[in-house]
Order: sequence, then C-alpha cells, then structure tokens
Amino acid sequence: MVDFYYDKGADGLTILGIMGEAPKLTQSEAIEISRQTLKRSGDKPVIVGVSAPGLAAIEELTKAVMDLGAAGVMVAPPASLKTDDQIFGYYQNVVDALGTDVPLVLQDFPLVTGIHISSSLLGRIVEAMPSIVMLKHEDWPGLAKISDIRNAEAKGRRRISILCGNGGVFLPEEMERGADGAMTGFAFPEMMVDVVRHAGKGEMDRAQDLFDAYLPLVRYEQQPGLGLAVRKHTLAKRGAIASATQRRPGAMLAPKAIAEVERLITRQTKKLEALS
Amino acid sequence: MVDFYYDKGADGLTILGIMGEAPKLTQSEAIEISRQTLKRSGDKPVIVGVSAPGLAAIEELTKAVMDLGAAGVMVAPPASLKTDDQIFGYYQNVVDALGTDVPLVLQDFPLVTGIHISSSLLGRIVEAMPSIVMLKHEDWPGLAKISDIRNAEAKGRRRISILCGNGGVFLPEEMERGADGAMTGFAFPEMMVDVVRHAGKGEMDRAQDLFDAYLPLVRYEQQPGLGLAVRKHTLAKRGAIASATQRRPGAMLAPKAIAEVERLITRQTKKLEALS
Amino acid sequence: MVDFYYDKGADGLTILGIMGEAPKLTQSEAIEISRQTLKRSGDKPVIVGVSAPGLAAIEELTKAVMDLGAAGVMVAPPASLKTDDQIFGYYQNVVDALGTDVPLVLQDFPLVTGIHISSSLLGRIVEAMPSIVMLKHEDWPGLAKISDIRNAEAKGRRRISILCGNGGVFLPEEMERGADGAMTGFAFPEMMVDVVRHAGKGEMDRAQDLFDAYLPLVRYEQQPGLGLAVRKHTLAKRGAIASATQRRPGAMLAPKAIAEVERLITRQTKKLEALS
Amino acid sequence: MVDFYYDKGADGLTILGIMGEAPKLTQSEAIEISRQTLKRSGDKPVIVGVSAPGLAAIEELTKAVMDLGAAGVMVAPPASLKTDDQIFGYYQNVVDALGTDVPLVLQDFPLVTGIHISSSLLGRIVEAMPSIVMLKHEDWPGLAKISDIRNAEAKGRRRISILCGNGGVFLPEEMERGADGAMTGFAFPEMMVDVVRHAGKGEMDRAQDLFDAYLPLVRYEQQPGLGLAVRKHTLAKRGAIASATQRRPGAMLAPKAIAEVERLITRQTKKLEALS
Repeated sequence: MVDFYYDKGADGLTILGIMGEAPKLTQSEAIEISRQTLKRSGDKPVIVGVSAPGLAAIEELTKAVMDLGAAGVMVAPPASLKTDDQIFGYYQNVVDALGTDVPLVLQDFPLVTGIHISSSLLGRIVEAMPSIVMLKHEDWPGLAKISDIRNAEAKGRRRISILCGNGGVFLPEEMERGADGAMTGFAFPEMMVDVVRHAGKGEMDRAQDLFDAYLPLVRYEQQPGLGLAVRKHTLAKRGAIASATQRRPGAMLAPKAIAEVERLITRQTKKLEALS
Repeated sequence: MVDFYYDKGADGLTILGIMGEAPKLTQSEAIEISRQTLKRSGDKPVIVGVSAPGLAAIEELTKAVMDLGAAGVMVAPPASLKTDDQIFGYYQNVVDALGTDVPLVLQDFPLVTGIHISSSLLGRIVEAMPSIVMLKHEDWPGLAKISDIRNAEAKGRRRISILCGNGGVFLPEEMERGADGAMTGFAFPEMMVDVVRHAGKGEMDRAQDLFDAYLPLVRYEQQPGLGLAVRKHTLAKRGAIASATQRRPGAMLAPKAIAEVERLITRQTKKLEALS
Repeated sequence: MVDFYYDKGADGLTILGIMGEAPKLTQSEAIEISRQTLKRSGDKPVIVGVSAPGLAAIEELTKAVMDLGAAGVMVAPPASLKTDDQIFGYYQNVVDALGTDVPLVLQDFPLVTGIHISSSLLGRIVEAMPSIVMLKHEDWPGLAKISDIRNAEAKGRRRISILCGNGGVFLPEEMERGADGAMTGFAFPEMMVDVVRHAGKGEMDRAQDLFDAYLPLVRYEQQPGLGLAVRKHTLAKRGAIASATQRRPGAMLAPKAIAEVERLITRQTKKLEALS
Repeated sequence: MVDFYYDKGADGLTILGIMGEAPKLTQSEAIEISRQTLKRSGDKPVIVGVSAPGLAAIEELTKAVMDLGAAGVMVAPPASLKTDDQIFGYYQNVVDALGTDVPLVLQDFPLVTGIHISSSLLGRIVEAMPSIVMLKHEDWPGLAKISDIRNAEAKGRRRISILCGNGGVFLPEEMERGADGAMTGFAFPEMMVDVVRHAGKGEMDRAQDLFDAYLPLVRYEQQPGLGLAVRKHTLAKRGAIASATQRRPGAMLAPKAIAEVERLITRQTKKLEALS
C-alpha cells in the first residue's frame, strides 16, 4: 500500500489517522506498522497519528515513532473538551508532554471528534505553540477557516502548513484559498496529486475538471462509518492491499453497495478517458 | 418562490423544514407563510414542518395548517431523546396529541438533530403508528436504511413513502434502492425532478449524467450552516426570491464564497448544455 | 403557587425556566401565565424565561412580558452553538434583538443545554453587553466560576448579580464565594430563604446545619428528568399547586419513588424540629 | 491504598475505572498497577476496568489481568455508539473478543460516556450474553432501572449483580431497590460499607442516618472533573496515598476548595461522633 501511494504520486504519508483502523490496534501494533511504513518510505516524510485518551500513551507512541524517523505526529482533540480554554490547554499539555522539538500536526475534524475550533482559537494556539507546524484541515464547512488563516498570516502571523482532509471533497476550493495540499484518504490518490499539481500551476479549470470526474465516488466514500469499507474495497480491487477485511467492529459492504461502487468506478474511468 | 418550484416541475412542496429559517419565525408568521403557500399551491400537496420543543406548539401549528389544507405535517425528533424507547415514546406522544387522522412525516436527519433511528426502531414505529405515512430520509449514511425498509415491506410490512433529503446528494442511489422521490432544498430543483423522472423510467445512466453535472454545486450547498446562504444567493440570482438576506443569526456569504458559487454555476451550465 | 413562594419568604420569582414545563406551553399560554404571575406578585420582581429556538419568538415573548411589568428576561444558549465566538455572537444577537434597555439574565446550565461557558468567555460577554445584569449560575462544577467573577470584579470589572440554581445543592458554598442568592426550584423554598439569610449574616454553621437537613431531598429532587415529578408531588402535597399532573411528555412518579420521597420528607421534618 | 480500602471493610476492589487516572496510563503501567493490586488483595476479588477505544487494547489488557488473577473485567460503551442496536452489537463484539469465560461487568455511566442504555436494551444484552454477570450502575436517574432489573428477574430472567456507583449518592435507595452493594469511589469507603451492611440487615433508618452524615461531602466529591482532586486530597490527608498530585491534565484543588473540603470533613466528623 505504501508503494501504491508513492507510485500514484504521493509526496509523503500520514498514517494512523482517525478514519482508518488505528484505534483498533494495540500500541505495539501501531509501532510496528509505523516502523514498516517509515522503512518503506525512505526519505519521504511520514506523519503518524498518535491521538489517544491520555497523554502517556501519546507520549509513548510519539517517542517510538520519532525515534523511527517520523517527520512529526498528529493529534486530534479528545471529545471531552468543552470550551476554547480547555482546547487551548489540551494542546499546551500535549506540547509540554512531547517537547517543543517534535513537529506537531493539529487535526481539526469536528464531524468525528465533536470539537469545534474557531479561527480565533486556532490563532491563539498557533501563536502560543511554535511546534504546531501544520493543520490537518477537516472542518466542514471549513473554507473560510483557510482564508482566515492565510489572512492572519498576511498580517504577520507565523505561517503554518495546511493540508486538507475530508476525502478531498472540497479540494479545488481549498487549494484556491491557500491550502498546501491534501492529506486524506480516497482510494484514487492520483485525484489529489493531479488536483494539487494543476491548482499549483494555476490551472483551476483543469483541476476542477479532473476533480469533477472523481467527485461521485469521493462523495460515496465520504459516508461516515461506511467510507472505510468503500475505500478498502477499492484499494483491494486496485491491488494496493491484499484484503478488504476490517477488524471488528467494521461495517460490511453489502452487495448493493459494492454494485454502486463498481458502477461509479466504471463511470469515473470513462470520464477520465474523455479528459485525457 | 412557490411558482418557481412548480415551474421547475415540483409535484408538491415541503415548507418550514429544518435547514431554512422556520425556527426564526413566530408561530403566527409560520401560519401566515403556510397560508400563502397553500393558497398558491392550489391542488398540489404541501407538507408543513411543525417541529418545536413542546407538543402544545406542535399541536397548535398542526391544527392551523391542516385547517388551511396542508397534506400533512412533518416532525423531527428533539435532541433531548436518549434511547430507542424514548424516541418511540416521543412519536407515540406526537400521534396521540395530533390525532391519528393527521398524516405524519417522520424527519430522520441525525446530522442536525443528533438523534439516530435504526432500521429496527423505524420498523417498530411504522408498525405501531399508522398515521406515519412517510419518511423524510436524511440519514447519512442512509442508503442501507432504504433497502431495509423496502425489504421489510416485501415481507409484508405496511408500505411508507420515502422522500429523500440531504440536498439530493445521494439521489441516484436512493432512487435505485426504492425511494419515491426527493423532498429537499437545492437551488436547482429541476435536478431532482429530472433525476427522479429518469430513474423512474429506469434510465439510470441519464439520471446519473444529469446528477453529476449538478453535483459540484450540490456538494457546495450541502455545507452545514453555510448552505442556506448559498441556496438563497442562487435562488435570488435565479429570480425565485427577492432577496438573499437572512434573519439573524444568518451566515453571510463572503465575496470569495460568492465567486466560488458563481464559478460552479458557470461550469454547471456548460455541462448541462453539453448534455442537452 | 405564587402566594406559596412569597409566604415562604421569596423576594421575587423566576418563571418559565428550563426545568419546569415552559417548553410545553404555546406562546399565548406563556404570556398568560406571565400575566397572572406578575399581577399576583405586585411589586416583587419577576424574571421570565424566554429561551426559544429563534430570536423572533424570544423577541415576541420579551416584548409581551416587559409590557406586563417583568423585571427582566432570562435566556439560555441554544444547543447548536459550538465555539466561544458563536456563544458570544448569540448573546450579541439577543441583545441587539431585544434592545439594551431590557435587563437580561444569562442562564448558564450546561448539564441541560450542553453549552459550556468558561469564566473568560463570560467575562468577554459581561464586558461587551451591559444589559446582561445577572447570571443564573447552574454550571456544575461551578464554584470556581463564582470566585472568578468576583475576583475579576475586585479588579474593576462591572458587577453582575449571581443567583444560583441546580436546586440549591451547593448553596452554602456558593453564598460563601459571593453569590447573591438562589433562583431555583426545590419544593421547600424556605431552605433557600433561610440559607441565604444566615449566610448573609455570616452564620455559616447555622446555614449549613439547615441546608444539611434538606440535602437528602434536594439530592433526590436533582435527578434529571425525574426531578420535576418529585417537585410537583411535593408542592401538591404542601398545597402550593392543585395537581401534580404534568403535560406530556412527563415522567410519572412510581409508587416506590413516592414512598422514597415521603420517607425523606418525614426524616427532614424531624431534623428540622431538632434544629428549631 | 489497597490496604486502606480493605481496612475500612471493602470486600474487593474495582480498579482502573473511569473517574480515576486509568486513561492517563500506558498499557504497561495499567498491567503493572493491576499486578500490584491483585497481589496485595490476596483472595479478595478485584475487577479491572479495561475500556479502550478499540477491541485489541481491551483484549490485550483483559488477557494480562485475567492471567494475573482478576475476578473479571469492566467495559463501558464508547461514546461513538448511536442506537440500541449499536450498543448491543458493541457488547456482542466485546464478548466475542474476550471469550465467554471472562466475567464481564457492564459499566452504565451515561453522564460521562454519553451512552444511555434503557432497561429494555439492558434486558436484551443480559439475555443474549451470559458472561455479563454484573452491572456497574451509574445511570442518573437510575433508581427505576434497579427496580426494572429485579422485576424482570422475578419473572424469570437470569440474575445479575448490581453494584452502584456515582460516589454512592443514592446508596440507601439503591440498596432498598435491590442493589447488591456499592462499587465506587468516595474517600470514606466506610460510608459504603456501613450503609450496605445496615441496609442488608433491614436497618434502613440507621443506614440513612449514617449516609446523611456523609452526604454533604459525597455531594462535594461528585462534582464532575473536580471530584478526583477532592478524593485524592482526602485520601492523602487520611494517609491512604502518599500524594494528591495528578498526572496532566488534572484539575488543581484551589485553596478555597481545600477550605470547603476541610470544613465539610470537620462537620462530618462531629455528626458521626453524635451517631456513634
């Protein structure tokens, strides 16, 4: 799977995020998967998701993967946080625990975490914690947040990287608003590679044309809970993984859903051919 | 706006739902809007959303709009419900309060209400309460729920209508799984009319081709909170409403967002021309 | 019931709050109950809860009850708010809608609303909106918040009234930290009257002795959802209301629960006799 | 601390529950603490909380502590579950993962987990999964649930143990409704030992008298988030633990709170002397 993503043009990888099966692993399995991915990635940067209910587990996994050569770690806020001050305090605790030399990615994914981080709170966090160098942007709606960040930076705030998630479902608009790229799933990573490349060259119509060809499947893969089954089915079909089986609890892809996915892929292939 | 929707092919209307500005109205304004819509709709069926924190307000509005000629009323579950039994009991209370002669639409929109209704609970409700004649289907993911309902009906359970929501973002798949149509916003209602018509004739590829042309804007209008501003902007642009202004609290559409919408509409127009 | 509360020593009343049956009323019923309560209260101040899903309903009820002579209105934040900025913006909208001449009570009751307001956010709101003159304090835990407010006021921030809720379950500590009194239910309002009076005279041991005698029942009445049935049972038993019946949906008090309440009241009566 | 609890009369221990610092431990620390507690407990039964985001971590810890001699493990439902069927399915997955020979305690603590389990759902779970032998009862309100369980058992359903939590704040009523005892914190475990013993002998007035003496502190220790600091302060003061310090993130007990706790303990001591 690692080779597959690089073959499709990925510049690096983020592993053990929220949507996949990271929470279904033991800590030692998480470390082992990180080891294999880092080894296979060579010089490409790999970010490892280390979110956990407690700081000790976060620390333990961070130390292990940074020693193995990770480029940084990613932390999403736990669902128990209630106020802006608590969210700020949580990230302060994380930075204190990990040390300021560990590059940190803040994962902002309210649909799943239930934690909403306003642009102003994000600004407070960025200003106070220099080791937070990147935002994994998955707020929804989240386009204005990208503009808010870039506007604040234009006025002098420290620049952070913004890599977008949510399966890339707003990637053209996100790139135009100043995102640096995508950092998300979707079983056709070449969509993200191509959209980001064309957007980077200012070829927005071409970027959007390609994006539109993939959008019906992107949308289908974005179904909460079910999306992972869709993605694993497609990755298995494409030869990136050996099996689509999930660890429990894992949604099964029913025959009707498989037929829908197949139909969308067939249509997508035709559209891409027409565009090539 | 009523004329606009019928001109575009709507068979009827649902008003005062969740996404619009119904909660921003006083009860007397809600009745007045229902009166005007019903008058303008003539023989076309109009369903009125009557969700409110308490049963007395639901009863009051239901009585008023049924007297005015509404075809039925729609009720979403309040966020305070915790268990299957509480959700069941809530609808039993609603039916008891309104009387079994008022046709009732159950609005199943967990992204907004926070209330999740499983297929088995929905079956219990349908079996116990004959006046619930329709599901406004907005669960996400929700495709399997349509199949579950139609499968149970194939085994003898009473048939209910299923009209789909969520801006129509899964309409082709929903129609193929047995939905009866769409009952949702989106500033181009002709998309839903066309997709439902072609799907009804078994022309799924044509349905999907048309759907795909609209999908980038459907997606954009589906942004929680922001979507209403997008829709009102487009409806105003199309002449369906006089002004896109929202009552407080209403998200403003920033210039960048307006530009994104305009660009999507331009692209959509070209795609539709290519398809015609 | 109004006479009962004044006979027991209440200085004023707050009606149509969250725990009672206000959401089960139509708007016209809410206005009628306010009219009767205000008339019966004479010169005593009455605050009316006007929380509603939309500003138009809040405005309508506020105008009606202020015209009838209410001392002010109380607004709790709706569950849909997500961030500090959204909560701030909501109260700004309320103040804008009602006008700055309507005295406003901010009800801070996260257990029920799901909205958590930090001390720092509360400070921002108080500084920006002079018409917010009182906090109905029902955060849990909430003792530190009282200290935070009084500390900020000692450093120059505008003073607000703090009246405590939560059935009075922390009233002695709240008074000692600077609260001005209680504004909450509990079927023995004389408890609050006595605790506040003794605390005001610095007789904290006496205040706590009396409080302790009532605490087992306070605790019992604090059960979420069930508490209203307990309170109405006791108020009916004491002659304050004619019937304990609730509008649907209302939890029934089972025979075992009635026996538990009766037993707690019997024990409470004995303890109070020993203290008198 | 283990000795302290047994000295005060505990029959056994439950460790690594929700309120304490279990989520702040690494897996290997959790195993080490279990090892020490089990060794020190000798023949007394020890239940170990093994709740975690994924089944693999639950399995890993369960296997370790059962090998070390635990009497069983306790699992609370994760916050991501939405419907009765999902909660049922979750416990089915847990039982499948651990094997039916591991005695399982279902922790029902909706205030913290956000998951509400109705009496009917609990019945379905108990009937389907014989290895669930105990309920840690922390629903609030939860008295009717105890009665529902015992009533169903009187009609033939398999009996489960019910040990109550929530710091014991409803312990007299819970015992009278058929609970088997308490399994919760509170820095004076002798309260629970005494209330359960007297209730077991039918001496309900004596049980309630003792309970009432402790209730003001029980109430204070029940403050969400803050309670752990209160409990550790008191346990340190009583010599049960060497230090009240918490791992991050841990609420600090402010001087005012310490004074309140000290005052409540002084008053409690006097009341207990008067009762002895």
